[in-house]
Amino acid sequence: MKRKVHVQGSRDDIRVPFAEVELSGDNPPVRLYDTSGPLNDPPTGLPPLRAPWIAERGVERTQLYYARQGIVTPEMEFAAIREGVEPSVVREEIAAGRAILPNNVNHPESEPMVIGSRFLVKVNANIGTSAVSSGVQEEVAKLTWATRWGADTVMDLSTGKHIHATREAIVRNSPVPIGTVPIYQALEKVGGDPLKLTWEAYRDTIVEQAEQGVDYMTVHAGVLLRYVPMTVGRVTGIVSRGGSIMAAWCLARHEENFLYTHFAELCEIFARYDVAFSLGDGLRPGSIADANDEAQLAELRTLGELTKIAWEHDVQVMIEGPGHVPMHKIKENVDLQKEWCHEAPFYTLGPLTTDVAPAYDHITSAIGAAMIAMYGTAMLCYVTPKEHLGLPNRDDVKAGVIAYKIAAHAADLAKGHPGAQAWDDALSKARFEFRWEDQFNLAMDPDTARAYHDETLPAQPAKTAHFCSMCGPKFCSMKISQDLHEYAALGMEAKSAEFASSGGQVYLPVVS
Amino acid sequence: MKRKVHVQGSRDDIRVPFAEVELSGDNPPVRLYDTSGPLNDPPTGLPPLRAPWIAERGVERTQLYYARQGIVTPEMEFAAIREGVEPSVVREEIAAGRAILPNNVNHPESEPMVIGSRFLVKVNANIGTSAVSSGVQEEVAKLTWATRWGADTVMDLSTGKHIHATREAIVRNSPVPIGTVPIYQALEKVGGDPLKLTWEAYRDTIVEQAEQGVDYMTVHAGVLLRYVPMTVGRVTGIVSRGGSIMAAWCLARHEENFLYTHFAELCEIFARYDVAFSLGDGLRPGSIADANDEAQLAELRTLGELTKIAWEHDVQVMIEGPGHVPMHKIKENVDLQKEWCHEAPFYTLGPLTTDVAPAYDHITSAIGAAMIAMYGTAMLCYVTPKEHLGLPNRDDVKAGVIAYKIAAHAADLAKGHPGAQAWDDALSKARFEFRWEDQFNLAMDPDTARAYHDETLPAQPAKTAHFCSMCGPKFCSMKISQDLHEYAALGMEAKSAEFASSGGQVYLPVVS
Repeated sequence: MKRKVHVQGSRDDIRVPFAEVELSGDNPPVRLYDTSGPLNDPPTGLPPLRAPWIAERGVERTQLYYARQGIVTPEMEFAAIREGVEPSVVREEIAAGRAILPNNVNHPESEPMVIGSRFLVKVNANIGTSAVSSGVQEEVAKLTWATRWGADTVMDLSTGKHIHATREAIVRNSPVPIGTVPIYQALEKVGGDPLKLTWEAYRDTIVEQAEQGVDYMTVHAGVLLRYVPMTVGRVTGIVSRGGSIMAAWCLARHEENFLYTHFAELCEIFARYDVAFSLGDGLRPGSIADANDEAQLAELRTLGELTKIAWEHDVQVMIEGPGHVPMHKIKENVDLQKEWCHEAPFYTLGPLTTDVAPAYDHITSAIGAAMIAMYGTAMLCYVTPKEHLGLPNRDDVKAGVIAYKIAAHAADLAKGHPGAQAWDDALSKARFEFRWEDQFNLAMDPDTARAYHDETLPAQPAKTAHFCSMCGPKFCSMKISQDLHEYAALGMEAKSAEFASSGGQVYLPVVS
Repeated sequence: MKRKVHVQGSRDDIRVPFAEVELSGDNPPVRLYDTSGPLNDPPTGLPPLRAPWIAERGVERTQLYYARQGIVTPEMEFAAIREGVEPSVVREEIAAGRAILPNNVNHPESEPMVIGSRFLVKVNANIGTSAVSSGVQEEVAKLTWATRWGADTVMDLSTGKHIHATREAIVRNSPVPIGTVPIYQALEKVGGDPLKLTWEAYRDTIVEQAEQGVDYMTVHAGVLLRYVPMTVGRVTGIVSRGGSIMAAWCLARHEENFLYTHFAELCEIFARYDVAFSLGDGLRPGSIADANDEAQLAELRTLGELTKIAWEHDVQVMIEGPGHVPMHKIKENVDLQKEWCHEAPFYTLGPLTTDVAPAYDHITSAIGAAMIAMYGTAMLCYVTPKEHLGLPNRDDVKAGVIAYKIAAHAADLAKGHPGAQAWDDALSKARFEFRWEDQFNLAMDPDTARAYHDETLPAQPAKTAHFCSMCGPKFCSMKISQDLHEYAALGMEAKSAEFASSGGQVYLPVVS
């Protein structure tokens, strides 16, 4: 069975959650990273876990400030225990700008986590109401569902009415950092007309969201006026909503992007709440044809310039990346981002490795996501099967999160993250020893694994059977292999005679 | 709409099928590779397309023989037209052993296709009855279903009763090459006891299957006695059914694998029918822990040795590969296979890039499959969501085929296969221009893409709407981007004033 356990830190109120899977026999339990938070049904707000730590510090500074001062905060220690590393490693990575710990002082309900390429690869799930669909309760349910399956952060991309109320319900019930794209609400405030957008309307929106507790915000400050014409020859132009809004504004006024010109003021607001920047890639490619083009790369250079300004204000930064990129152009994205953005964490949307499979873009993009994470991307923004087609429902959220947890874990393995392979080894050992229940409990999605097994072999005895439905009782290769294992371990030549004389019983019961 | 068209070759009876997608407006139609074969419902046997070509040649030789003689057969020309290359390229690649054209003379119903790293990446779907489940009609339905969604070859892995009858129904109704693993039936013939297996029983099975028209056969001739102990320290031992059967045989008798010792005789039989070898990787890793280990690589070297022997007999060869491999160890598999197996086509099962997600192994393995194909694997054996858990049903077959067609196409793009990106570009252009019906028709799975769109915006007008459900009519970034495109194309500065004076109408109707 899987159950939640807590590991105590250096003080009583640092209690770090894990999902512990108990295994049969004398197999040691396996502890897995856990994002599900405290149980909270119905959702009436989570306990303010971090409130005492925030209160103790008095005047609030950012985690980047403390890290640079050599101070390990309770948040850093909490995140370090989750990662299985020394707290000093978390502090060092944050101080160097290579990692962020998104944690608005007004979101004390969140369980601290760290995003950086030296740590486990993280997954973000997007939710949110839109003008044509969805409601507040539904979105809170999606939040809980997403974190249950492993979402490390959730972005509320609500548009339309009830943006404030939806966000309030989400932040108060979220055990993970919440991100937003404030330009959506700012646009609502000016009646939906990009040309009426002003710095003041945007600033007020930022303050409103920071007051609510949003932990990181996507800011499309790199969409510069002179970059907009670079998108004209593209197959799919500008596909980022925020990017296209800012491009329309710049173009209509023939003025520089106000997010760029007011960036230092933005930093001052962000620093007051410890909101982290997610510097948006408003000019990301929306098709294979547009990958790694001039517009995308020009914006990336500007994001690197803005990163340095944010760091001067002790504000944490991550950099958003594409999008749609064929496999052979993926590595270049990471290499350039590292170089130009001074190793700030990279946060990519996929990328999709082909455009031809709408309805399966969780798969087209899981391929790209796994690869880009292997090369160093710190967090992956999920893509659901509904991408390009409609709004994700509950099933789509789960499909997207699972596909991305697979991509993230595959990258953790490829990067040799300490402890990552222990999970695979435990599951494979259970599989080899026909410990079906252990195999299900260790699976990323125990419910579906069990259900699929039941479809072919529903009876309870099949759960303890030393074979499976693919080969049946006579042919099972795992079973034969186990027997070989026993015989070979005893000395091949001596045992081969005994093996044959026993009547070729390769199907002897195995003690596992 | 999508419809089947045929391209005429150099003679009247070379008529190569394509799926042609007609697009709206003045957009040219897009022709896609088509594996679905002639419609045949109910399945009463397909027309013997290749019968005249086989009859004309009189004494039958293999495609490898003809290619080496400088002869372009009708089969080679047919395959070349499908690939969009010159027939001489197909001939040269086959002659060099870098490609195979599996086409048993007794399977004249098959539409010729070529497997090699210079050509489009191919996908195999496994079907077949087992001891505990499934029937003949069901398996023929799976065959038709698999080729409808793009399976390039199908392997009949039936075990249990009715093996012969199942295979007969499959071969007679298959427009794609059929592969088998004859050891399964040979084992049935000796009562299911590996120790009773003999070369004679195996040989008779090979002849029986070759007579029926099986196009390629997996032969585990590389599982040598001395390699078996190398698997003892593994987490998951031997996971190949054929590999474990041969290992049990070798171990019990302390004799060398009879498939290895009789390999030349096997070649003589294969040559008579032009059956191709799929040299099986009986010692492939079954877990991340076991990837690229001594046992796997020792067998691979032996497969290279056997490749040369097969080529001496003019028999076509491909090499099977893993299995379970973490991302950072994938490339080594291709590099060693190319070197040790003299560039014979590589045919891999995935590989799965993590063990922890049973029920999602079509995704864990699509990641590895896309990567290994990018590095040069010629054909990918699909993995369905039921892998490790149960037998794939119709839905699982489709899920597996689609995931693998995505992986294969992503690799075609990454390898820069001529024409591959035209499909992506056509779909992305349709997406950018809100040609919803064109987008659906170009999708790998039009049915599901249309259904997902209908879930959020079911009304017919939504199919012609210049926005989608993600952003709604006001926010749509594609729409804004299109307007920008129009303005920017006319000269930025001059137009920005006009743009603003028009009342900021960024949502003008667009003529697409």
